[in-house]
Amino acid sequence: MTGGPGVLTGEPLTLDDVEDRARAVLPPEVYDFVAGGSGTESTLYANRGAFDRCHLVPRVLNGVEHADTSVTLLGAPASMPVAVAPMAFHAMVHPDGEPAVARAARAAGVPFTAATLASRPLDELAPAGGQTYLQLYWLRDRDRTAWLIAEAERLGARALILTVDVPFMGRRLRDLRNGFTVPAHAAPANLSGAQRGAGQSVGGHAASVIDPTLSWADLEWVRARTRLPLVLKGVLDPADARRAVELGADGLVVSNHGGRQLDGAVPSLTALPAIRDAVGDDCELLLDSGVRSGTDVLRALALGASGVLLGRPVLWGLAAGGESGVAGTLELLRTELEVSMALAGAPNVAAARRLGVRWAPCADEREGT
Amino acid sequence: MTGGPGVLTGEPLTLDDVEDRARAVLPPEVYDFVAGGSGTESTLYANRGAFDRCHLVPRVLNGVEHADTSVTLLGAPASMPVAVAPMAFHAMVHPDGEPAVARAARAAGVPFTAATLASRPLDELAPAGGQTYLQLYWLRDRDRTAWLIAEAERLGARALILTVDVPFMGRRLRDLRNGFTVPAHAAPANLSGAQRGAGQSVGGHAASVIDPTLSWADLEWVRARTRLPLVLKGVLDPADARRAVELGADGLVVSNHGGRQLDGAVPSLTALPAIRDAVGDDCELLLDSGVRSGTDVLRALALGASGVLLGRPVLWGLAAGGESGVAGTLELLRTELEVSMALAGAPNVAAARRLGVRWAPCADEREGT
Amino acid sequence: MTGGPGVLTGEPLTLDDVEDRARAVLPPEVYDFVAGGSGTESTLYANRGAFDRCHLVPRVLNGVEHADTSVTLLGAPASMPVAVAPMAFHAMVHPDGEPAVARAARAAGVPFTAATLASRPLDELAPAGGQTYLQLYWLRDRDRTAWLIAEAERLGARALILTVDVPFMGRRLRDLRNGFTVPAHAAPANLSGAQRGAGQSVGGHAASVIDPTLSWADLEWVRARTRLPLVLKGVLDPADARRAVELGADGLVVSNHGGRQLDGAVPSLTALPAIRDAVGDDCELLLDSGVRSGTDVLRALALGASGVLLGRPVLWGLAAGGESGVAGTLELLRTELEVSMALAGAPNVAAARRLGVRWAPCADEREGT
Amino acid sequence: MTGGPGVLTGEPLTLDDVEDRARAVLPPEVYDFVAGGSGTESTLYANRGAFDRCHLVPRVLNGVEHADTSVTLLGAPASMPVAVAPMAFHAMVHPDGEPAVARAARAAGVPFTAATLASRPLDELAPAGGQTYLQLYWLRDRDRTAWLIAEAERLGARALILTVDVPFMGRRLRDLRNGFTVPAHAAPANLSGAQRGAGQSVGGHAASVIDPTLSWADLEWVRARTRLPLVLKGVLDPADARRAVELGADGLVVSNHGGRQLDGAVPSLTALPAIRDAVGDDCELLLDSGVRSGTDVLRALALGASGVLLGRPVLWGLAAGGESGVAGTLELLRTELEVSMALAGAPNVAAARRLGVRWAPCADEREGT
Repeated sequence: MTGGPGVLTGEPLTLDDVEDRARAVLPPEVYDFVAGGSGTESTLYANRGAFDRCHLVPRVLNGVEHADTSVTLLGAPASMPVAVAPMAFHAMVHPDGEPAVARAARAAGVPFTAATLASRPLDELAPAGGQTYLQLYWLRDRDRTAWLIAEAERLGARALILTVDVPFMGRRLRDLRNGFTVPAHAAPANLSGAQRGAGQSVGGHAASVIDPTLSWADLEWVRARTRLPLVLKGVLDPADARRAVELGADGLVVSNHGGRQLDGAVPSLTALPAIRDAVGDDCELLLDSGVRSGTDVLRALALGASGVLLGRPVLWGLAAGGESGVAGTLELLRTELEVSMALAGAPNVAAARRLGVRWAPCADEREGT
Repeated sequence: MTGGPGVLTGEPLTLDDVEDRARAVLPPEVYDFVAGGSGTESTLYANRGAFDRCHLVPRVLNGVEHADTSVTLLGAPASMPVAVAPMAFHAMVHPDGEPAVARAARAAGVPFTAATLASRPLDELAPAGGQTYLQLYWLRDRDRTAWLIAEAERLGARALILTVDVPFMGRRLRDLRNGFTVPAHAAPANLSGAQRGAGQSVGGHAASVIDPTLSWADLEWVRARTRLPLVLKGVLDPADARRAVELGADGLVVSNHGGRQLDGAVPSLTALPAIRDAVGDDCELLLDSGVRSGTDVLRALALGASGVLLGRPVLWGLAAGGESGVAGTLELLRTELEVSMALAGAPNVAAARRLGVRWAPCADEREGT
Repeated sequence: MTGGPGVLTGEPLTLDDVEDRARAVLPPEVYDFVAGGSGTESTLYANRGAFDRCHLVPRVLNGVEHADTSVTLLGAPASMPVAVAPMAFHAMVHPDGEPAVARAARAAGVPFTAATLASRPLDELAPAGGQTYLQLYWLRDRDRTAWLIAEAERLGARALILTVDVPFMGRRLRDLRNGFTVPAHAAPANLSGAQRGAGQSVGGHAASVIDPTLSWADLEWVRARTRLPLVLKGVLDPADARRAVELGADGLVVSNHGGRQLDGAVPSLTALPAIRDAVGDDCELLLDSGVRSGTDVLRALALGASGVLLGRPVLWGLAAGGESGVAGTLELLRTELEVSMALAGAPNVAAARRLGVRWAPCADEREGT
Repeated sequence: MTGGPGVLTGEPLTLDDVEDRARAVLPPEVYDFVAGGSGTESTLYANRGAFDRCHLVPRVLNGVEHADTSVTLLGAPASMPVAVAPMAFHAMVHPDGEPAVARAARAAGVPFTAATLASRPLDELAPAGGQTYLQLYWLRDRDRTAWLIAEAERLGARALILTVDVPFMGRRLRDLRNGFTVPAHAAPANLSGAQRGAGQSVGGHAASVIDPTLSWADLEWVRARTRLPLVLKGVLDPADARRAVELGADGLVVSNHGGRQLDGAVPSLTALPAIRDAVGDDCELLLDSGVRSGTDVLRALALGASGVLLGRPVLWGLAAGGESGVAGTLELLRTELEVSMALAGAPNVAAARRLGVRWAPCADEREGT
């Protein structure tokens, strides 16, 4: 029985263990770039608090031997309702960079999202047999934007994920204090040479390449330009969600960008139910920002998500162990999810989405050490 | 006056004191096995938080000299609305093991639950004059399951408690980190020799003997096989509760298995009122997971419980003092309950169940040391 | 201007300062007896939490030069809506004992409550010109109970305060751990010699003299026996409050006995509004348990109290400075109340009782150090 | 792009950084005078807690290149919805005092409020080209009150801000413990010589000059005396707000005076929505008490504020760097606001006021260091 206690009993036992390992090997400013949030990091912590206060009501006697974590995400099968979130500069944490992550994702049966700011060429990020999503920043260089969409189609990407919550980068104080810059060895390989920004502050570089004027009209332009499934990432308001669906979006990522954009933004988990209500059952709703365990995935499902994007923990796995570190992280999460689903009496993802939820009014105190 | 301040004024004064004593004498990995929860232990702590936030509204002028803690549990009289919860491997914490606990329970006038994974033979666990419940895991070895039920009847057990929240063990990280295994001297004596699992990881052993496919159909099979009162342990969803009663369950244990199964599960105290509403007044509802004082028992009663199961504190008593340690623990709890009932103006358990309750929105801060 | 910033600018500046001073001079076990609560002290802390979460909505432009704190309490004028709560054994914290407190209360224009367990004779506790309430424990010695009522009338007491929440003492763990006993020099002077209990545990002594069977019928007996205003102390349930009024009680003290009886009881401040709703506007409602400042008094008024009883801070004042310590404490509280009322735009107590209140959902974090 | 990450990347990065700098250079008793609140400072902390629990729901795809922070405040254009709050004694923190702040405000395009207790003459506080509000305390010296109003008109002040929550100063325990007095070099220059109070306790001085009897009738007197826009500062109750508007107030400041007056008062952010509901959309509503970032300004806007007053951070800037320190502080806040608005998808202040808000039930825990 794969989800049983006989597997994955060695350390790391949790995604937080993986983070500890990564932290031990990364330069502090790189760790901070990945781990940090914007402003006072209030949203970064609120994301975690929302998961902690979300209590599940398990079912029993469903005769589940193996909870089936498999799912269809954006029209294609995945081993679990999880995809690798778009993140910039993977090579910053490990020389093998995005290709290692893409391979690990393929092996794990989950989609990999190639980021506009990936540190390796797109060609290396869509391994045969894997599922690739292409994340699109709305670039000032419109030709490059068009090229990215075309490349996505050429490489057989399964979906375009258009990030809509980054007109520019949030004020990430750790980076500003650390004077963190785009590392030359991890600079965005898919931008034209002049735009790769090595040595620039990460925020300054983003401002120089990203067009902040992205609008509903642009969404229509993208929609008309490609038949790939189109997903908007960074939606938290139900009215925006409804409008996006009306304009042809196939899915949304309910996200506050991991607490890295608007400090003070609502936790995505808190925002999720109203979004699901707004768009109905047919729209694919992914969620990110704060997922750190299989139980967290289950919480998101129970609140209406179709699946989640996993961000930082993937980079922790990469930092700690390259491709196999990512593989281990994904397998750990899948095991946790399978265990949580089975313990919650949910034989499959559809059942998981029917679980009851009770919000605790406050976080519970932990005893001191 | 037995419940007055003249008794039990020596230490240990609280069940937490008993835990402290046990912790001082137990090997750390054994303490961890008993004390720990699954995953991040969020449910373990949430259980305690729910009790802390549950405020009672006492009554006055009821002329109570002695609050009467006695009660009928599953058709038989008990000295208080408490039974010893099923727990595996008692001999792990003290060589006298389950028989000592069973004797102490008999002396205290409360039911003892013999666990499927008890470290001593069933024959020793049902002392004459005591009340015994038999806890049943749904074993892969169906003959052994049938034998356990037959033994329960032969030994005069008062009830069968079918555990429904353990298709396999939750991920208990303390045990995994400690490499904890089934201790040879405490291995489950009521399984066939090959299945006793000494030296196996506790989770691995559980997976090898417990059948995860337990279903509503199996419940009907059990129901048809015995006339013993049948209690389902591990129910948190009202719809499950209702269905169980419809299929002939005589009682339910509202439980999250002490925070040891689904990490993130709702606290059982929080779940209780909706379950009581679902099943009406006739169904026997026990509660466990987090009971640490007489006031906690009273809280459970006020929220609709017929009684509670006491788990870890019994093992702490056993570890700290063998049979007399358990006796002291039970007497302490009974005294606390009697005191709490009298101070709440509840002359008996029926009155206790009519007490008002106010939920505090958050835990209250304690001053520093 | 008496309530202005020109007065009481020297230390102690708060009632907590007074406690600090008392703690510095008292034997630890005496401090603990006064400061402590029952059980885990959850109600002790919840009392404070309720005040902290109770936010006032001040009014403006009421043209208040001097907020008038004066009030009529149980038919007699008082300088502020505060009376000294009944407390046992004053001589334990200072040799001058209750007479010093009674004199300080008289000078401050507030009623003093002589406790059944006072350490000095009643004759010394009702100084000419002062207002005295007599607190009555329902004694096993019914003749002594009758004598106390008769003495109350003979000495011109303004009210009888019948304590209804002490069938016996709560489990006060600090006292049990400290082995605290009734100090010989502070033993209850108004009990017959054999019942004074010097050297007995405080709980044991209370159990030996207090009759736990106090009932609604007994209330009727007391009611019929005296024309003194009759106040029941320790009421938290609205139905009890209504019944008490129907049976002739002139007032109630909404109280959980300072967190010293039922651990887990609802904070009295939380319970207050429903009690006021139950008894209507005519019943005198006092409140105690957790009052530590003039703002706390104002909070109680805004939630429906006619006034409050002040307990521990009076003993801290006595311990720290004898009669003048109590005088200072009461004057500090009156100043705080006058300041708070004026700042809240309440020119008098009637206006204070119309102030709006908003409950915060949680306590606010304080910055470190 | 001015609001982008390319600006203000050097330290101080937050208003709290500015406070740290000020604290490092100020005498502790001066720091305490500015930083402190009244009583237990519960309202001081509750103010911050309210902001922290106020989560914003950002919008997307609004095509915002530059969020436009400009606004009309009290009929005149400002660069952002922020004005400098009235505060006494600026020269206490820096020899350049109020004139430096006024110049920095003018340069930043925001109104400066000249306080009645300013340490420099009014003539120096209304630099040509700047916008000045005059804050009015209701002085016992009515001639001086009239003179202040006349001066406001003579100097072209844009509004009168009548403080209504200071009949006298709250009990500020830090000042009382520090023995803090009005510094001679910062004494209020706009009072007649005898009333400047150098060396007096700040509270005593305030009591000697401020008339606590300010009433609705006085408001009518002021209203009739000047055609300047009239703003009442310190309103928290909706009925007061409504009455003020009926009597001709042009605006209100929803404020608890930074937690310095009634300890226990409701946080102004919590009070704001009901005030907006009470007065409708036409009344100008400013808010102060706890604003520490651009996101806080955005929160206030989203809850119905027309703008905010910025208090302590201005003095921190002045203390740390004189005029340029204030300029830096205001520019930092404007940048933060522009960034927050853009990230929230609000192209302008009108859009900001339509953002959704979700209140978190409790503050989120931060990981330990």
